[in-house]
Amino acid sequence: MVRRNKRAPTRLIEHRPEWRRLRHPFQPQEVFSTDKIEAMHEMALKLLEELGLKVLLNDARDVYAKGGARVNEDMVFIGRDMVTAAIASAPASIQLRASSKERDLVLENGALVFGPGAGCPNATDLINGRRPGSLRDFDNALRLCQSFDVIHKLGPCCEPQDVPVHLRHYDMMRSQLSLSDKFPFVYGRGPQQVAECFEMMCLALGLSDEEFLQSAWCSTVVNTNSPRQIDRPMGQALMDFARAGQLTIITPFCLSGAMAPVTVAGALILQHAEALGALVLTQLVRPGTPVCIGGFGSNVDMKSGAPAFGTPVHVQMSIGTGQLCRHVGLPWRGAAGAASNAPDMQAAGETHHSLWGNLMANAGMVFHSAGWLEGGLTFGFEKFINDVEALQTIADLCTAPDASEDAFGWSALEQVDPGGHFFATDQTMQRYETAFYKPLVADLNNFGTWELNGAVTADSRATGIWQQVLSEFTPPEGGADRRASLEAYIADHTAAGGAPIMD
Amino acid sequence: MVRRNKRAPTRLIEHRPEWRRLRHPFQPQEVFSTDKIEAMHEMALKLLEELGLKVLLNDARDVYAKGGARVNEDMVFIGRDMVTAAIASAPASIQLRASSKERDLVLENGALVFGPGAGCPNATDLINGRRPGSLRDFDNALRLCQSFDVIHKLGPCCEPQDVPVHLRHYDMMRSQLSLSDKFPFVYGRGPQQVAECFEMMCLALGLSDEEFLQSAWCSTVVNTNSPRQIDRPMGQALMDFARAGQLTIITPFCLSGAMAPVTVAGALILQHAEALGALVLTQLVRPGTPVCIGGFGSNVDMKSGAPAFGTPVHVQMSIGTGQLCRHVGLPWRGAAGAASNAPDMQAAGETHHSLWGNLMANAGMVFHSAGWLEGGLTFGFEKFINDVEALQTIADLCTAPDASEDAFGWSALEQVDPGGHFFATDQTMQRYETAFYKPLVADLNNFGTWELNGAVTADSRATGIWQQVLSEFTPPEGGADRRASLEAYIADHTAAGGAPIMD
Repeated sequence: MVRRNKRAPTRLIEHRPEWRRLRHPFQPQEVFSTDKIEAMHEMALKLLEELGLKVLLNDARDVYAKGGARVNEDMVFIGRDMVTAAIASAPASIQLRASSKERDLVLENGALVFGPGAGCPNATDLINGRRPGSLRDFDNALRLCQSFDVIHKLGPCCEPQDVPVHLRHYDMMRSQLSLSDKFPFVYGRGPQQVAECFEMMCLALGLSDEEFLQSAWCSTVVNTNSPRQIDRPMGQALMDFARAGQLTIITPFCLSGAMAPVTVAGALILQHAEALGALVLTQLVRPGTPVCIGGFGSNVDMKSGAPAFGTPVHVQMSIGTGQLCRHVGLPWRGAAGAASNAPDMQAAGETHHSLWGNLMANAGMVFHSAGWLEGGLTFGFEKFINDVEALQTIADLCTAPDASEDAFGWSALEQVDPGGHFFATDQTMQRYETAFYKPLVADLNNFGTWELNGAVTADSRATGIWQQVLSEFTPPEGGADRRASLEAYIADHTAAGGAPIMD
Repeated sequence: MVRRNKRAPTRLIEHRPEWRRLRHPFQPQEVFSTDKIEAMHEMALKLLEELGLKVLLNDARDVYAKGGARVNEDMVFIGRDMVTAAIASAPASIQLRASSKERDLVLENGALVFGPGAGCPNATDLINGRRPGSLRDFDNALRLCQSFDVIHKLGPCCEPQDVPVHLRHYDMMRSQLSLSDKFPFVYGRGPQQVAECFEMMCLALGLSDEEFLQSAWCSTVVNTNSPRQIDRPMGQALMDFARAGQLTIITPFCLSGAMAPVTVAGALILQHAEALGALVLTQLVRPGTPVCIGGFGSNVDMKSGAPAFGTPVHVQMSIGTGQLCRHVGLPWRGAAGAASNAPDMQAAGETHHSLWGNLMANAGMVFHSAGWLEGGLTFGFEKFINDVEALQTIADLCTAPDASEDAFGWSALEQVDPGGHFFATDQTMQRYETAFYKPLVADLNNFGTWELNGAVTADSRATGIWQQVLSEFTPPEGGADRRASLEAYIADHTAAGGAPIMD
């Protein structure tokens, strides 16, 4: 098939205020019976008590010990009373404050928050090819995230590898706060970097320390080193974010058959234990600090050991995670994702299966919902655009169909003769402009027209779209001011040598 | 990206007996409240009573009239008592008999039957390009359908346009019965063709007339001409199949905004009324004859008037159809589908969304679940293979995760040190060969290996797969005998001039 870029239509981006805060349209499904979920929760508690977690950070072990845990060298054994207390003190509903009030989010049972593909070292697109991520790529991915209402929070879509790590947080924070008004992320790469990111947020948003500490203005992701280990930067991040009352998203990455048991049940027990064990630390540091648990569970391919996504196990682990997290009554995150190396049918299939798995599970946050390729090694711009189509479709599904008398529309049914059509009924004329989702990248032309237009496939059409979105991008209101408010701070701290990352 | 065909791995086809008969893994969802569903059903009854259906076949109108309907010229007005009686007499559970006992199906609430993309005039693949369907394409599509356990029934994947229509049913029946042992279809193209197809089935399967009449050995699809019309061949097919006790799949094709109201509720009311009105005819002809209702509802693009699939309306209409059909307690069909002109991310996205919509709706039969492109104008071989991956993923999801004590696996959790891996635990060693779904077309190699292997995308990998499946194809047991048993019949009837199709 010929690959050519077609000029995309003028009006690409549909702004739908109702897409900015979504509620799940479907009832959560179950893959385990209630008594099995209780038994899995019990075994997770037993794991924390009897097998324990390895916690590499001294300060974190001290907090656990003071809270009543038994500590033996770097092993921490956490009693079920401590877990129960942490579950009780962690909030079930969390307000997330963004630069712009209209981007504020709520994270709670029933809420549906989409985050973009994140944590990718590389970026790719059909024009520039695959390359190590740069600040330019990071910024462009931010612009795309900002442009579509269905992307609710920011994430490190691709790593700006051209910026040294001791300075990288300055650029990442400046870009997020100036190019977007959505809920930002902060990497937990050591206390100084985290503290400086918090300072930059206060500066840019004009917040006093007290105002900052009272709400969640940003989030970090803490991956446990499954199985049963919390490394030093992760332990530090748990404590730093808890102290500041910012959102920690605790994410065991339990790939069944590799870092987790080969069974869905076993992998979920491990994931649940790790999430609860880390939760305890945050609640000991500051009871009531906002935390999102959950995980990112899928399986490896047993032939190659490679991670697989959108698989039956991925869907089942998502649903099981939802059951366990609702059992303890806490908000939680899941993840979509794709292993494919290209923006092709495999990539779309993997992301759709895993996205629907998260819907079936009623995940509060769905990470990696747009742009993820290669199991997270690469952020793909064409994949991002096509995934946004999927998210917009889901977002539209979040509004139930009209069930009013006018929607039933007896008079429309009466108006049309047998074998006729409804194009001209009063009901159609009143509703046609807003009745249906308008596709972003799908081409609904017939084959002949599509061929005449160059037989452009969805990947290449997406190239035209991201190019146009970037070329038409305008930073959000206040973005320039937020950028200006950071310049002196960043210049001073850069001149002073930046901030080291923690090993 | 380079497109090259890579030799596919040797073992492509996974034979999983449990995939041959599936039950829905998820609870059905709702988009309307129960009282709204009741109100929609009521309005459908009112529509049949007051607005009526246009029925173009005299014989059918006579049957309606004898059954108590008011007939005025070609309009038939059907009382709710007649509808209630038809709903009561139609079976809620239907046994579908295939050539091979192991391919028998059950159609009832909770069952999940996948049918391939069907009704396409054209075929396409990356080797031969897009062309009018031929008998060779029809046969090759049959071979693919036969090869994968998740395709449960046959369908006219692509039309053998190179065979004259008065002889086409001979070839289509011979191919189905010799190349496959799965539940076949028969076109309702007039009484003589239908009668001959039934005769061929009796011959090939060695059935007496009585044995044939006692079970459903084949099915036909009857599309109403929405809105509110049943044409002559369709009316005839409803009667012919009812008389013979064969399965009629009544399928209003209600595209919201075109042949149906612009609202989901209105389109569903029309679809429901048409399905029930046609159901009445079948039950008047032979009370208890097996019928599958439902529909194929989506929306048109209001800019171009083109049908769209995998849209929010498609998903909502699927779920609403499920609610209405469960309300009357009858088995029903839905449909997946794609409007894309190429086997690309759009195609995969549309089919995945609509497939999941059918899962959310608990559709008994999901038509067009593999290979459909261009809104049904073309059957795509690469699309078929990639869709089979999706269906196999769903099929695997139909088995709940193991919740046994061994699956919980305390000893495996104990065996692995913090930061270690589970590759070598006893639990993994015992289960790894069957623990995870093995992909058909997904390539899980890392980017470097994938690139070294030619950077082959999912569409081109699928080319290698369908080629290999076809080259290794062996007809099912009994296929050659069934073919032989038909040769004389077909030769005689061909010599006698074949059978006309009905206008």
